[in-house]
Amino acid sequence: VVVSFSYSAIPIDEARNELLNREKMVRLGEHLVLRKEEEQVNGNLMTLKKAEITKAMKTQEFPPSMHFFHAKKLIEKSDVFHILKKMPKGAALHLHDFGILDGDWLVKNVTYRQHCYICFNPSGTLQFRFAHSTPSNNKQDNSSKWILLENYRRELQNVTEFDNSLLKTFTLVTENPEVTYADQHDIWAKFDTIFHTVSGLVHYAPVFRDYIFRSLEEFFLDNVMYLELRAMLLPVYELNGETHDKEWSVRTYKEVAELFAKDHPEFIGLKLIYSDNRSKDVSLIKESIQTAMALHTSFPKTVAGFDLVGREDTGHTLYDYREALLIPTMEGVKLPYFLHAGETDWQGTSIDNNLLDALILNSTRIGHGFALSKHPAVMEDLRKRDIPIEVCPISNQVLKLVTDLRNHPAVAFMAIGYPMVISSDDPGFFGAKGLTHDFYEAFMGIGGMNADLRTLKQLAINSFKYSSLSSSEKKTALQTWEKEWDTFIDNLVKK
Amino acid sequence: VVVSFSYSAIPIDEARNELLNREKMVRLGEHLVLRKEEEQVNGNLMTLKKAEITKAMKTQEFPPSMHFFHAKKLIEKSDVFHILKKMPKGAALHLHDFGILDGDWLVKNVTYRQHCYICFNPSGTLQFRFAHSTPSNNKQDNSSKWILLENYRRELQNVTEFDNSLLKTFTLVTENPEVTYADQHDIWAKFDTIFHTVSGLVHYAPVFRDYIFRSLEEFFLDNVMYLELRAMLLPVYELNGETHDKEWSVRTYKEVAELFAKDHPEFIGLKLIYSDNRSKDVSLIKESIQTAMALHTSFPKTVAGFDLVGREDTGHTLYDYREALLIPTMEGVKLPYFLHAGETDWQGTSIDNNLLDALILNSTRIGHGFALSKHPAVMEDLRKRDIPIEVCPISNQVLKLVTDLRNHPAVAFMAIGYPMVISSDDPGFFGAKGLTHDFYEAFMGIGGMNADLRTLKQLAINSFKYSSLSSSEKKTALQTWEKEWDTFIDNLVKK
Ligand SMILES: [Zn+2]
Ligand SMILES: [Zn+2]
Repeated sequence: VVVSFSYSAIPIDEARNELLNREKMVRLGEHLVLRKEEEQVNGNLMTLKKAEITKAMKTQEFPPSMHFFHAKKLIEKSDVFHILKKMPKGAALHLHDFGILDGDWLVKNVTYRQHCYICFNPSGTLQFRFAHSTPSNNKQDNSSKWILLENYRRELQNVTEFDNSLLKTFTLVTENPEVTYADQHDIWAKFDTIFHTVSGLVHYAPVFRDYIFRSLEEFFLDNVMYLELRAMLLPVYELNGETHDKEWSVRTYKEVAELFAKDHPEFIGLKLIYSDNRSKDVSLIKESIQTAMALHTSFPKTVAGFDLVGREDTGHTLYDYREALLIPTMEGVKLPYFLHAGETDWQGTSIDNNLLDALILNSTRIGHGFALSKHPAVMEDLRKRDIPIEVCPISNQVLKLVTDLRNHPAVAFMAIGYPMVISSDDPGFFGAKGLTHDFYEAFMGIGGMNADLRTLKQLAINSFKYSSLSSSEKKTALQTWEKEWDTFIDNLVKK
Repeated sequence: VVVSFSYSAIPIDEARNELLNREKMVRLGEHLVLRKEEEQVNGNLMTLKKAEITKAMKTQEFPPSMHFFHAKKLIEKSDVFHILKKMPKGAALHLHDFGILDGDWLVKNVTYRQHCYICFNPSGTLQFRFAHSTPSNNKQDNSSKWILLENYRRELQNVTEFDNSLLKTFTLVTENPEVTYADQHDIWAKFDTIFHTVSGLVHYAPVFRDYIFRSLEEFFLDNVMYLELRAMLLPVYELNGETHDKEWSVRTYKEVAELFAKDHPEFIGLKLIYSDNRSKDVSLIKESIQTAMALHTSFPKTVAGFDLVGREDTGHTLYDYREALLIPTMEGVKLPYFLHAGETDWQGTSIDNNLLDALILNSTRIGHGFALSKHPAVMEDLRKRDIPIEVCPISNQVLKLVTDLRNHPAVAFMAIGYPMVISSDDPGFFGAKGLTHDFYEAFMGIGGMNADLRTLKQLAINSFKYSSLSSSEKKTALQTWEKEWDTFIDNLVKK
């Protein structure tokens, strides 16, 4: 028998190398050429990474395949994590205004401030409000009265216990997430409750300012130099009950960022993506679009565009909102969109089709795009137009879209060099800090044994490339980042 | 500001339809044209499917996203499941010799046969042996003696309890799989133990014959007409200790299949893929390749080729075996391969690279190919050569490669019409029967709301197209299947 196999004519090693090279060539960041020192650092990094993965294959304890609430401690012991922490990661492009800081600061600092009132709702949820005198009752008749927290604490036998219980209302973190949150309904209910609870604290003007400042600080300490925040711009209030409008909030974000930049010259800045909730009726979203256009016009350097936030599975689809979302086009105004789309496991549903509409509506980036692998045409067009997905591994895991991050759809996207950035969504709610935990999951779990320093460098570069910075701002930002990157490399080489 | 968005020139609905159509066109089975009656059945099927998914979105109880051991009862209540059960599903191309039947028959029938001896090993594992007189002890000194099961049962107070405990040793099924099997090491250990325990029963010549017959029956009742079995062809023994060689086993498979076909004219047949275990040294695999070539020559219509089985993560890689696997090419003999490859979550490891070697070694099909989405070059070449992956959803879930089947990599493959077949691997160990449970998972979980009767029909057609049947056998098989298919459609239309 004469055999005519296509591969049998060449030796197996040659065929393998050809395949390995073809796959290498298309991987995210593969085209980057590393300088000698970078190669050296890469060598060390990959040795650590391989050791960690090889050990995990034996022990079967691999952080990216565990729930983050269990994995966190393991991750923070990892040598790879410590390198990632020091690495200048560029920008965080997918964050929500008040999901950034962990609850600790809110409990120990904010709730200990003067004039802080607390209200225990019969449903078990909490509300806070700062005021000169006791606020009037909530509209719901059966909600309990407002109590001055200072007085309440004074009468407690065990304040630590109370503070710990407060902390639990500010975060999703629990010892047994599998038990606490049986399904997505459970975790999203808690998620919404946290936003509600935290709201009265963070919208008090002095806390509002401090929250922004501390957020910048936390990310800066995590070697992130630039942030784009999805911000709801809800009314901020003063002690006397006076409230501020959205313009005031935008100005405050701007001022605080400038203040922070003064003492941190490597800090590049902050932009806002004005966001409304997809639970609202289209008529209200129409108003929000008008507001977004106005804000974008008034603050062209601070308000980058518009997004819709909240749970996709139960919210309105982008198609439901088409009349609202087409207003800028109709009016010939350019309002960039940064739409959450495809944050769902329900393939083929109207929700899943948000990805189509995000593309059609010319979204500048796609928030999550978790469902994108199910949409080959959308994928193709997005890639042609170089529209990136914002991958938030820990968020997707905690919100129960995927269990083992090695099965995250971004795995296949990273393998073909699909445009993406890594972000952390609401790290404060997840018990994460800055971007490093998510970078660890992406580098170890999503990238597998193949992702190396090139992948990481590309992710950092992408975070500027796909940001809303103007081209001159991008240039400056990249220069600043490159300096930091070189220092990072040099420090590691010296070791 | 003049806006030049690429999509804004055309109405949103037009753009959407264009995208929806493009995605529809490439989906698995989309090019099939249904006749009027099929369209009608499709309509009804999709109504049931949509109702089931819509309900699951509310209740958050969706079988494909639950562990199969929990989901099974729900699945069997599903209307969609009952239609799938009746549907002529074609062929089962990825099955292992003694993983087909559930343990019930082994306990209630086989272990009650005369001359059955049992041995309780100190490690807690069981062994069985049929013999005229008590078998001599195992080689390990500390294993307990062989006891005639008939006598043993006679002295038991509670035989039902004992039989239930036996049943548990024949299956992976437990009430709390998440607790029982903490990781892949645990589940594979149990998996190997089952094979070991069952071995003494199924290799007793009369049981061997009955096992084959019942397997054909079970699949036939599940409307599967043709099987390709990965078979180890281990020695089969008689009561007097006499053993039979591989040729005898192949002949027996052939004879039993012919016997079964006599009474079931729509039954198409059975082929074997001789398989050895990837834990063995290359020298032994070289011998197995020689054996495979000999068997393929002696039984060209029954022995279709060769495969390597057992856990990939801990076994030898295909590359380790390259000298053995290249023997047929070197000798100019054609031995088709049906290689398991990519049944791993460990991206970028030498195990993960089995996919490269399966391609290079011209595997006729790929067993699982779970890791394929991480290998764009392999994917491209396999597709060019029309090499399908054998997707076994329940197996992948039970063996802990993926939790929620909506995150199975085949989701993206189905969306681009990648060549695939659905199979059940070792349904007996998983508590599944035939192919229907796996078809349910594939149709509901992997296909999402988009997969319809076309997808199912294509999967059935694929099962013949990618089988080892000769082209004339395929033609006959497809004709027989089409008749069954039309009856299936007509019965549903009448309702
Ligand atoms: Zn988000
Ligand atoms: Zn298998």
